[in-house]
Amino acid sequence: MADTPPRSPLSPEQFPILPLISGVSFASAAAGVKYQGRTDVMLAQIAPGSAMAGVFTKSSTRAAPVLDCQAKIGLDSDAGAAIIVNSGNANAFTGKNGIEATQAVTDAVADALDLPKTRVFSSSTGVIGEPLPHDRITAKIIELKTTLDESAIEAAAEAIRTTDTFAKGAGAQIEMNGKTVSIAGIAKGSGMIAPDMATMLVYIFTDAKIARANLQIMVSELNEITFNSITVDSDTSTSDSLLIAATGASDVDVTGSAAFKDALHGVMKDLALQVVRDGEGATKLVEIQITGALSDADARTHGLAIANSPLVKTAIAGEDPNWGRIVMAIGKSGAAADRDLLSISFGDVLVAHKGWVNPDYKEEDGAAYMTQPELVIAVDLGLGAGKSTAWTCDLTHGYITINADYRS
Amino acid sequence: MADTPPRSPLSPEQFPILPLISGVSFASAAAGVKYQGRTDVMLAQIAPGSAMAGVFTKSSTRAAPVLDCQAKIGLDSDAGAAIIVNSGNANAFTGKNGIEATQAVTDAVADALDLPKTRVFSSSTGVIGEPLPHDRITAKIIELKTTLDESAIEAAAEAIRTTDTFAKGAGAQIEMNGKTVSIAGIAKGSGMIAPDMATMLVYIFTDAKIARANLQIMVSELNEITFNSITVDSDTSTSDSLLIAATGASDVDVTGSAAFKDALHGVMKDLALQVVRDGEGATKLVEIQITGALSDADARTHGLAIANSPLVKTAIAGEDPNWGRIVMAIGKSGAAADRDLLSISFGDVLVAHKGWVNPDYKEEDGAAYMTQPELVIAVDLGLGAGKSTAWTCDLTHGYITINADYRS
Repeated sequence: MADTPPRSPLSPEQFPILPLISGVSFASAAAGVKYQGRTDVMLAQIAPGSAMAGVFTKSSTRAAPVLDCQAKIGLDSDAGAAIIVNSGNANAFTGKNGIEATQAVTDAVADALDLPKTRVFSSSTGVIGEPLPHDRITAKIIELKTTLDESAIEAAAEAIRTTDTFAKGAGAQIEMNGKTVSIAGIAKGSGMIAPDMATMLVYIFTDAKIARANLQIMVSELNEITFNSITVDSDTSTSDSLLIAATGASDVDVTGSAAFKDALHGVMKDLALQVVRDGEGATKLVEIQITGALSDADARTHGLAIANSPLVKTAIAGEDPNWGRIVMAIGKSGAAADRDLLSISFGDVLVAHKGWVNPDYKEEDGAAYMTQPELVIAVDLGLGAGKSTAWTCDLTHGYITINADYRS
Repeated sequence: MADTPPRSPLSPEQFPILPLISGVSFASAAAGVKYQGRTDVMLAQIAPGSAMAGVFTKSSTRAAPVLDCQAKIGLDSDAGAAIIVNSGNANAFTGKNGIEATQAVTDAVADALDLPKTRVFSSSTGVIGEPLPHDRITAKIIELKTTLDESAIEAAAEAIRTTDTFAKGAGAQIEMNGKTVSIAGIAKGSGMIAPDMATMLVYIFTDAKIARANLQIMVSELNEITFNSITVDSDTSTSDSLLIAATGASDVDVTGSAAFKDALHGVMKDLALQVVRDGEGATKLVEIQITGALSDADARTHGLAIANSPLVKTAIAGEDPNWGRIVMAIGKSGAAADRDLLSISFGDVLVAHKGWVNPDYKEEDGAAYMTQPELVIAVDLGLGAGKSTAWTCDLTHGYITINADYRS
């Protein structure tokens, strides 16, 4: 691995203060899986009676831990649960050896925490195709168990970083029926980020009370408009996983609660945008708003065509209000568009209106807007009521430097 | 426009010597459409009795000249024909004004050369969204007409360049029935290059004798395995056009001739690879060979997923035999794959075999191979008989420099 790149200029100033989640505790350790001199394993222990749900990559070459999680996530259980995650090695494309390595790690956690094996979920992130040195991880399980701490979530977020330039966390608290419901989540990811899949690694914890099946429906739906609506480089990881644990310790039933869903949406969107803010080499955070498409699906296709276009992303890096490249991306997306109905704005600057440059548009207005670190590009198709929002970052020399040198 | 980038390190040493095509003559001029101090318009006059065929971008935001060509290309006619092309302005996203500009140019050529208006085909390439100053072009028509010359094809190739670092040409001659059949073609393009469309601008001329409908079928079929199988940056132009003219002057009927089709295929592949060789910032030409897929269509999907992956392309730029990124691209492509049957080679170096790293693979062998300027990456899916070949280039700092500065 090359030297860690400098902290993203789009990063939050510091890791947020997150609410404690009753029933969940964290530990991290330096197992030396690949990196030296830093933590690289995290363990989360989740109390009995918690509901677990998750969303995973649809990659056909997904990693052994992903397949293992998918086999377990749909099972109902009142036993507790655990999540064990290592960075430095993705345990992907590792054949039968990969399955055995995942089993060795999850079995060791199940033994140490006295859990059924089906209740231990694992993720691995880092280099693809090298055998996971699972004995380095299992050697740390007792240390992890003895240091479990409800307040140690930031250290857990640190331990799962690979090329991330900052640890990512987000939380929320809402009042319901005179009681407080808390949500805290962490994520990692900054390259090999593309939607139509789950995300990179995301772990969210709440003390809300909700049945597993209902939690799964809610998180799957919110995933579409958060993690599945971001892209850094159109490349999709073999390890993307999102796990959520609801302990019920608040004693507040959130089934059907719009307030809880809004709060969870906020946490997921915050984490998703932090992943984009840490996009490899990113200097701009860009929101792509599509309206007037024939359908929401068409709007999504157009939004991601723009968000993934190297020519759009390099223009943004160059602070160039190059709306011709937006037209190009709309044209190639494959979704319905009528060139002569297209309108395009950069922030409040209307650049093109119904298929032709806005006569009042001045290049210097567009150029001035593009100098900002956070941008909104809005496209109206003029065809129907379909809409979508996607988020991306620019494509810079930093991306090339990181990825032409980094042996993932 | 930024200063022209230096000539691609992958470029041929010089423009090839192309056969003269009886019945076709060329002229070029400096009209000052946008660029100063260079030629930017080319005219080709094609003799009566010639067959014309073409393939065009499928972009929903395609430019006015493309729409005009598409309306004309399917008409049979024994009149002569002409092709008029300008660089510097794409006449795309220019609304009604764009249609009028195209008509002004093609009408002027029809008048000057005494052709029906339906037999004048035009293309424009360059900036999107600015009105085409068509009067600068029409002012040069008489100069172009009076300088038409059978041997002026290289100057025509020079005139249609935008960010191209070299003029692109290819030709072939075959003997049939004791007579010689000749083919000569030119192309332009180095960015906004992606398949599933025609190409950038390509003009091919032959003295073969063939009916329009048969020529169209042949060129459409060959287009799939040549221009539609290359990608520089996954972005698709609004102006992509390929036109072919068969004058019949050789008096050799090539209908159903495998030898002619092979020769035409060779010219089209040569031109397509020259476009990749001139890919913006390219330092490596990469052939992606897919075998063992469930179908040819699946093989194509996998090949283009690899060829378009920023992480694969940056790894190649870094001369990093990062086969994990190949696995990732296969996984995200959406086409059928079984992780545990995948085999991957870099040239003669077998890196992975049936879902696991080849035990005899040495990283230094892979790394040594990657230092070469022309690379072959072969992936066998192990599922069926589907196969495909695609070509791409690496993604380098040069691409960022060109596209973060160039106001297309």
